[in-house]
Amino acid sequence: MKRILTTLALCLAVAGAMNAQELANFSFGRGMKPIVSPEIQNDSVTFRLKADYATVVKLSGSWMPNPWGGTIDMYRGENNVWSVKIPLPSPEIYTYNFVVDGVAVNDPQNVLVQRDGTRYLPMLLVPGERTQNYGEATKHGTVSHPWYHSNILGMDRRLTVYTPYGYEANKNKKYPVLYLLHGAGGDEEAWTSMGRAAQILDNLIEKGLAEPMIVVMPNGNPGQAAARTLNIPEKAYDWRDPANRDAYVKSLCTEIVPFIEKNFRAIAKPASRAIAGLSMGGGHTISASILYPEMFDYICPLSAAGTATPEQIATLKKAGVKLYFLACGNTDFLFQGAEEMHAKLNEQGLDHIYFVSDGGHVWANWRLYLNTFAQKLFK
Amino acid sequence: MKRILTTLALCLAVAGAMNAQELANFSFGRGMKPIVSPEIQNDSVTFRLKADYATVVKLSGSWMPNPWGGTIDMYRGENNVWSVKIPLPSPEIYTYNFVVDGVAVNDPQNVLVQRDGTRYLPMLLVPGERTQNYGEATKHGTVSHPWYHSNILGMDRRLTVYTPYGYEANKNKKYPVLYLLHGAGGDEEAWTSMGRAAQILDNLIEKGLAEPMIVVMPNGNPGQAAARTLNIPEKAYDWRDPANRDAYVKSLCTEIVPFIEKNFRAIAKPASRAIAGLSMGGGHTISASILYPEMFDYICPLSAAGTATPEQIATLKKAGVKLYFLACGNTDFLFQGAEEMHAKLNEQGLDHIYFVSDGGHVWANWRLYLNTFAQKLFK
Repeated sequence: MKRILTTLALCLAVAGAMNAQELANFSFGRGMKPIVSPEIQNDSVTFRLKADYATVVKLSGSWMPNPWGGTIDMYRGENNVWSVKIPLPSPEIYTYNFVVDGVAVNDPQNVLVQRDGTRYLPMLLVPGERTQNYGEATKHGTVSHPWYHSNILGMDRRLTVYTPYGYEANKNKKYPVLYLLHGAGGDEEAWTSMGRAAQILDNLIEKGLAEPMIVVMPNGNPGQAAARTLNIPEKAYDWRDPANRDAYVKSLCTEIVPFIEKNFRAIAKPASRAIAGLSMGGGHTISASILYPEMFDYICPLSAAGTATPEQIATLKKAGVKLYFLACGNTDFLFQGAEEMHAKLNEQGLDHIYFVSDGGHVWANWRLYLNTFAQKLFK
Repeated sequence: MKRILTTLALCLAVAGAMNAQELANFSFGRGMKPIVSPEIQNDSVTFRLKADYATVVKLSGSWMPNPWGGTIDMYRGENNVWSVKIPLPSPEIYTYNFVVDGVAVNDPQNVLVQRDGTRYLPMLLVPGERTQNYGEATKHGTVSHPWYHSNILGMDRRLTVYTPYGYEANKNKKYPVLYLLHGAGGDEEAWTSMGRAAQILDNLIEKGLAEPMIVVMPNGNPGQAAARTLNIPEKAYDWRDPANRDAYVKSLCTEIVPFIEKNFRAIAKPASRAIAGLSMGGGHTISASILYPEMFDYICPLSAAGTATPEQIATLKKAGVKLYFLACGNTDFLFQGAEEMHAKLNEQGLDHIYFVSDGGHVWANWRLYLNTFAQKLFK
């Protein structure tokens, strides 16, 4: 009997090599009590993993004080299901993984997964006021992945485009556009996967808190045609080289913006264009506002790796800005730069919102910023 | 020193809890020799995984004779990188995973990943004639995820829609449409993720082997609004209940088809509509051809879980069919049903292609079938 169970357990572990539609004809695993993980109950959350032959199983989570090496032990229970119950962290989206004998393992029970580069990370969404717009709304916009041709970068490149609920039905309506840029290490899916941009916009629009808008999320790595998951060879570009940074920003403003305004029902006016970006994308946002000061009336650098000179700010002010939303976490390694940018904007008398949040250079902040500034656009 | 290395190794293992854009400011892991996996060299392929504390590491792959429990041992090498070199399997896309002390672990080095339900599986694409259309083409169509409202099923539901390269540029051109259905256990992303439908169509169209067409991939589970990854509560529907199967097929033919023909530049004629589906979706394909015999001129049941009566076939023949492509693997557990359907089509004199391939109820066959019948549509 024990031998049979052992064989079954091994089968479960390695069934990864087969697909659901290939397995559909088998009553595979029936009669076993389903494992639930993560399970939120009142003020606690329990994580569970079946690991028959493991010696040490730990849990690592982004809510831990030190997500680099911080782990807590899990304990072997009935049927070799390891578990640990911890106090529920404060409302936010966290990522976590198990560490089985030193190897990172995802939670096979969790349907909520985000992609970060080539890694897939289980998410823990803790409900609360802060996260109320991070889950699924009732009415959904459409996420699409059109390709535009860049003469500047010499390739076809993939975009992610969100059109709001109602876009298909209201054929005569035109919409304002937010260009939403990712940071280094990200790609054209970072904002929809880690940033929950589609959910945040769906919820804000459904509640009447944001104007229905198109959101365009390009790939900000000038050597990449698309996310690495498509396995398309990359050109060797160093994104830290200002020439390349500008090449991408030029492609954004002179190729992507026209592509969107030709192929989507976009309002092609500065008052209906916003640009926002995090980290490297915050640098791109500032660069775009310097290189094309007339193009965007809404400018939102978030935890930005970039700055502007007093002269550039004066030029931008003259061009007209409806909203300048500068945001940074107070423990961000780029916080000093945000402080300096805030001072420069003050010196030049460019009205702006300086939004300082707790915490550092993390997606928890970038979701919060999007959820905040999206409510102030195009009004 | 050993202690430092051990700590570093643990950090690498648990860094899963942080995101690339959050890590971007650290020179994390620099100076370490990159691990390449899988690495194809001539007639062999090597898999590698760093696992410092593992006792037993195995490899499981869908090319193995018994993917249920078949594994081969991997061996610990320098820096605790476990590896195994095996003869290269014949050209196809395979899935695989590592088994570390009994727990399934994905390959953190592999950018090619497919999603099957809630599982993410690394892929091995072995180049060759059979797989020449499974990689990325030069020119890409657009994949989008619009939502349609179903009065029949009582919810908004998510679709995957492929529009061919050139769709955006050729604003006056209308296209024929293939409705491509998944099997039990799948969802609206099954054909693009496991089926490589976008790559296959991109390649066939680029080579002039297929007509530029729109491909619509709905969610065939009547209780599901969308893939479980969106974590939207499901309605309790049993897909095996014919009433529910028909409810979905009715939604497909009377709600999805009109939605597509209204919102995309589709040619709204039977001669420009094709329907194909695998397994449960093959059953849906046959049901649609029975319930709406005038709707589709191209009908392709693949490894189908479904059949038709002689009278139904006679009615369909009278309605007019330009292509009936019946496909099945010769070791498929549904092969007998395909043989019987083939005989019935012959009895009723309905001209058809009976495409029998080696192998069973597997995506390797479904990709092959799409790559084959897509070349015969709308010509």
